[in-house]
Amino acid sequence: MTYCVGILVRDGLVMIADTRTNAGVDNIATFRKLHLFEKPGERIITLATAGNLSASQSVMSLLTEGLENPETGVVETPLTVPSMFKAAQLVGRAIRQVYEVDGVEIEKRQMTFDVTMLLGGQIGSGPMRLYQIYAAGNAIEATVDTPFLQIGEPKYGKPILDRAISHGTSLVEALKLGLISMDSTLKSNLGVGLPIDIVVARRDALKAQVTYRIQEDEPYFRDLRERWSAALRAAHQAIPHPPYTEEVL
Amino acid sequence: MTYCVGILVRDGLVMIADTRTNAGVDNIATFRKLHLFEKPGERIITLATAGNLSASQSVMSLLTEGLENPETGVVETPLTVPSMFKAAQLVGRAIRQVYEVDGVEIEKRQMTFDVTMLLGGQIGSGPMRLYQIYAAGNAIEATVDTPFLQIGEPKYGKPILDRAISHGTSLVEALKLGLISMDSTLKSNLGVGLPIDIVVARRDALKAQVTYRIQEDEPYFRDLRERWSAALRAAHQAIPHPPYTEEVL
Repeated sequence: MTYCVGILVRDGLVMIADTRTNAGVDNIATFRKLHLFEKPGERIITLATAGNLSASQSVMSLLTEGLENPETGVVETPLTVPSMFKAAQLVGRAIRQVYEVDGVEIEKRQMTFDVTMLLGGQIGSGPMRLYQIYAAGNAIEATVDTPFLQIGEPKYGKPILDRAISHGTSLVEALKLGLISMDSTLKSNLGVGLPIDIVVARRDALKAQVTYRIQEDEPYFRDLRERWSAALRAAHQAIPHPPYTEEVL
Repeated sequence: MTYCVGILVRDGLVMIADTRTNAGVDNIATFRKLHLFEKPGERIITLATAGNLSASQSVMSLLTEGLENPETGVVETPLTVPSMFKAAQLVGRAIRQVYEVDGVEIEKRQMTFDVTMLLGGQIGSGPMRLYQIYAAGNAIEATVDTPFLQIGEPKYGKPILDRAISHGTSLVEALKLGLISMDSTLKSNLGVGLPIDIVVARRDALKAQVTYRIQEDEPYFRDLRERWSAALRAAHQAIPHPPYTEEVL
């Protein structure tokens, strides 16, 4: 399992991903799932991956080596495409190419070709965008109404985002909320694990302000988890008792 | 979809269930999923159901009419079985009987016979117990280590329970936490909806202290939801900024 979340607010983009992979609970490993394609001052593109690890890694290799654009004949990489929309199409083509080679064979063996990606970033004077790209290579895009997208195990970490994230949330609050969302997922799904990779990019900066890995014993993240748990306990205790329990409970 | 949660703490039992059923998003209805079998002073048994509605209703009908115990030949209902373990076995037999009649035909049509139940209560001087009963009629039981069980859509409402529920949680706090857990699920899954049914039974009281239905516009539940949202916002804002964001965000 995996948990990655991308948050696109007015001020910029936050991408957070865990690093645990597992083929059954008895085969656990650490792999980076959050990748950065950056030419500071010109473009910043981040890609988070979930699903079949061989598919994700093959897509990453294709993107790094470059894929021919069937319309133009030009070999493209995330460092050369002219827009974020073109970047999303490029990732979609890479996924479809891996499907044609490996996916068909995987499905013959009654397994699923499941791969999902979050692609976020900005190129030149174009808009900052955040996409979720599916196994068929099609994509949806975050908007002002729905400013975050999740892949992997989304449910445990969704309630806090639903409640607290809006387009106007500041970049640092969006990062903290993403970390709280990750914490809820870590607590409930053993298939999601530390270290946690983070990229934060301010809109129009065209570079990553923060690229950081939270290790197992990092004091800030431990403190955030403890403060959050303590705050939740205080919060439910401060809620009055239901009126229909008076005198009976 | 459905969300039901049972919480068994030192002081007693809380059972909470929504009432929404849906066959697709265009076919939504309200059905009671939380049922009470009670002889005050002798026994209290509650049953919450999730999954295929026809299966749940057939199980309820079988339980009400009574099933013959294959070992003794006696026709049993939840109001006659001598222990909670026997009650769980009775529900399991009812589920298997419905499977034999309808489940086999359902599966022939490439649909799933999915039914899960929570059974909680106490009979006479026996222990108060909480079971989760699966589609095969087998059951697991809540313990001091894991004092809550969920059926239907468990994930959105699990983080708060994981953090805050322990065997020593008071009955009224367990109820409030169950309602917060329900609120998180209501917010994120349209297949879970008000009204909400509640049963609370104090250990050894052998009756329900609270049987209550939260309707759409109930002021207390609305207030709980608003207070919880406000507390979460205050909580994440009170957490310090990550040290690696200083001077860059």
